[in-house]
Amino acid sequence: MGEFKHLVIVKFKADVVVEEILTGLEKLVAEIDAVKSYEWGQDLESQEMLTQGFTHAILMTFDKKEDYTLFLSHPKHAEFSGTFSTVIEKIVLLDFPATLVKPPPPPPPPPAAEVKAEV
Amino acid sequence: MGEFKHLVIVKFKADVVVEEILTGLEKLVAEIDAVKSYEWGQDLESQEMLTQGFTHAILMTFDKKEDYTLFLSHPKHAEFSGTFSTVIEKIVLLDFPATLVKPPPPPPPPPAAEVKAEV
Repeated sequence: MGEFKHLVIVKFKADVVVEEILTGLEKLVAEIDAVKSYEWGQDLESQEMLTQGFTHAILMTFDKKEDYTLFLSHPKHAEFSGTFSTVIEKIVLLDFPATLVKPPPPPPPPPAAEVKAEV
Repeated sequence: MGEFKHLVIVKFKADVVVEEILTGLEKLVAEIDAVKSYEWGQDLESQEMLTQGFTHAILMTFDKKEDYTLFLSHPKHAEFSGTFSTVIEKIVLLDFPATLVKPPPPPPPPPAAEVKAEV
């Protein structure tokens, strides 16, 4: 089984301090072990026709769907969601098992000198 | 600098054979080296209020923005986009440098026996 992803794309209300929200998210995922990894980004291109006004993507990865369920039911998540729902103008959520079609290349092997040092 | 992501969320037209589109995408990313990795998923929850009718997420990762630009200008991409644009009911694209806040844990080290075998 592959990983399970929680994808949120969002447009924040005009008067929102986005940095505060992002800091809150950072704290949230640090506190919940079930979240395997988390990354976010802000669209650079800003072509309204393509982004439909959405500005930020939030992407969390879980080892399996059960970990996502744990995350959803965590008290800290409920608390954060309460705040989050007040700052968004629009939002789309997609939750899905990820199919990794083209995996990233493996990291390069360590230099030979390092391998010897471990022997 | 972190990676650059190309995120597409989409709702296909009702009569579209989605598998054919996904096969086309698989072929596309296999042919273009600039695409570092590619994964996709179909939302499982199907809560219209949350997904807004979007069903699929398509996520490509590039080492840097320049690689994404190479991808965009690749003749195969132009060809695929022409087809893709005919099968979608609605779409959002977000292109962004990814901020990796919580990296995935490193893979476990190889068993000691394997390390010895390399000496």
